[in-house]
Amino acid sequence: MQKVALGWRRDGKRIGFVPTMGFLHEGHMSLVRLARAEADIVVVSIFVNPTQFGPNEDYERYPHDLARDRELCRQNGVDVIFHPSAGDMYSSGPGVFVAENDLSGRLCGAFRPGHFRGVLTVVAKLFNLVLPDAAVFGQKDAQQAILVRNMVRDLNFPVKTIIIAPIVREADGLAMSSRNSYLGPDERKRARCLSAALKTARGLYRAGESGCDALKKAMRRVIEGGKPEAIDYIEIVAERDLKPIDKLAGNCLIALAVRIGRTRLIDNLPLPDDRLGNLPEE
Amino acid sequence: MQKVALGWRRDGKRIGFVPTMGFLHEGHMSLVRLARAEADIVVVSIFVNPTQFGPNEDYERYPHDLARDRELCRQNGVDVIFHPSAGDMYSSGPGVFVAENDLSGRLCGAFRPGHFRGVLTVVAKLFNLVLPDAAVFGQKDAQQAILVRNMVRDLNFPVKTIIIAPIVREADGLAMSSRNSYLGPDERKRARCLSAALKTARGLYRAGESGCDALKKAMRRVIEGGKPEAIDYIEIVAERDLKPIDKLAGNCLIALAVRIGRTRLIDNLPLPDDRLGNLPEE
Repeated sequence: MQKVALGWRRDGKRIGFVPTMGFLHEGHMSLVRLARAEADIVVVSIFVNPTQFGPNEDYERYPHDLARDRELCRQNGVDVIFHPSAGDMYSSGPGVFVAENDLSGRLCGAFRPGHFRGVLTVVAKLFNLVLPDAAVFGQKDAQQAILVRNMVRDLNFPVKTIIIAPIVREADGLAMSSRNSYLGPDERKRARCLSAALKTARGLYRAGESGCDALKKAMRRVIEGGKPEAIDYIEIVAERDLKPIDKLAGNCLIALAVRIGRTRLIDNLPLPDDRLGNLPEE
Repeated sequence: MQKVALGWRRDGKRIGFVPTMGFLHEGHMSLVRLARAEADIVVVSIFVNPTQFGPNEDYERYPHDLARDRELCRQNGVDVIFHPSAGDMYSSGPGVFVAENDLSGRLCGAFRPGHFRGVLTVVAKLFNLVLPDAAVFGQKDAQQAILVRNMVRDLNFPVKTIIIAPIVREADGLAMSSRNSYLGPDERKRARCLSAALKTARGLYRAGESGCDALKKAMRRVIEGGKPEAIDYIEIVAERDLKPIDKLAGNCLIALAVRIGRTRLIDNLPLPDDRLGNLPEE
């Protein structure tokens, strides 16, 4: 991969990159189209990265369908699929890694210790192998997107543009995710409570409510209507440092992580500009 | 720096890189000549990296002489000196870093907590800014060289070659180091004990001794003859994992860290091939 990418770079081609864990859906394809617009060559990586999963998480059962992924990539103008094995990527044990000790312990990081270290390390590896000019990440994984941006800034990666793409949603508001395939029919219905809670918060915000306690309380009521197995967090944080805030002000993020059945779902809404959250209007 | 380097890469130029902390000496120039042989353009960075110094170390008093460094670089065919400020390099706080949790805690890492995290992070940043095809490191900092090699391997940096250059020594055997300038006349004489100890170990090894306890005991006697203020370590380790060994076998490293006055000196001898240690013969 790196040899090919070095050749493209030498030929002055702009490389666009979309890192994924496969089992692609329309959300991924929206990232591909954004990469396509920025680049001469679009690379999609498909790699279920073991180091970002905890011991009791879904690494072993993460869904995959390479034939369908290939077809979707073909239809959307992807030039190269990079599909390494875990053995290829980690032939020499854990060794040297990339990490962060502040933002990466908040929100999902508090419930998934080591997750963002795994993410940052594999994204650093993929950047070094694919050598993108532009890389595209989804707003669905808002914390990941922020940490990758910080990594590019702090380690000076020669990636000119990190594009954050709006969340793509199902008709009823559920944020698209490969993990939605885990949901049984009843769970799928209950999973609507995440986007419904964000809509409730947006409605209150538009009506003038800026107190985070009131917003979180209202969201909790909506989430609880979905009879979740657990609520990991319902949080409102400053985008800059992901620290909880009391009052909506500046760029902030309403973020949720909820377990429906065995499936952990996340969703979020950035404010005041909610374009990236892409929540349907009523 | 990165913009210029991306231009060179696009033009198919091979970039050779020698990262330094300045106050250059003949050791550094030997690295420059090795880079020169591999590359069309040779970049030397001069950056005293604050994050690799401990709170009671010599960051504030590290020696510098930019005018002399410039002249030495000119004489040795360096094309570009990259000389950023600490503010330029760390404009956004600590943030995302590169680290390793095994080898980096051994030898010097046991006495300088955080040192190799600082080193790996700044070398990753410099690699991303200078985009070298080949980078040259000195065997004097053996542990650093091994960790940088591991970083390039584990994070897949597109640096084709990491060259490890033999130690360059003064006539009496003292390994060249910018920190030697700290030594007063009496300290300078006593500093010979490091290379003398390594010579003693090499002599015993050549005479058939392979027991590490015996070798370390003999080295300690020589070091103590130099009346050091402290002996941080006298160690014999496997090169692969830097773990202490009982008997010389395979690729191993005899490594020393000794304090003479306020100055911390290090030296080493790789075995069985002692070419990189470059110890004078009697």
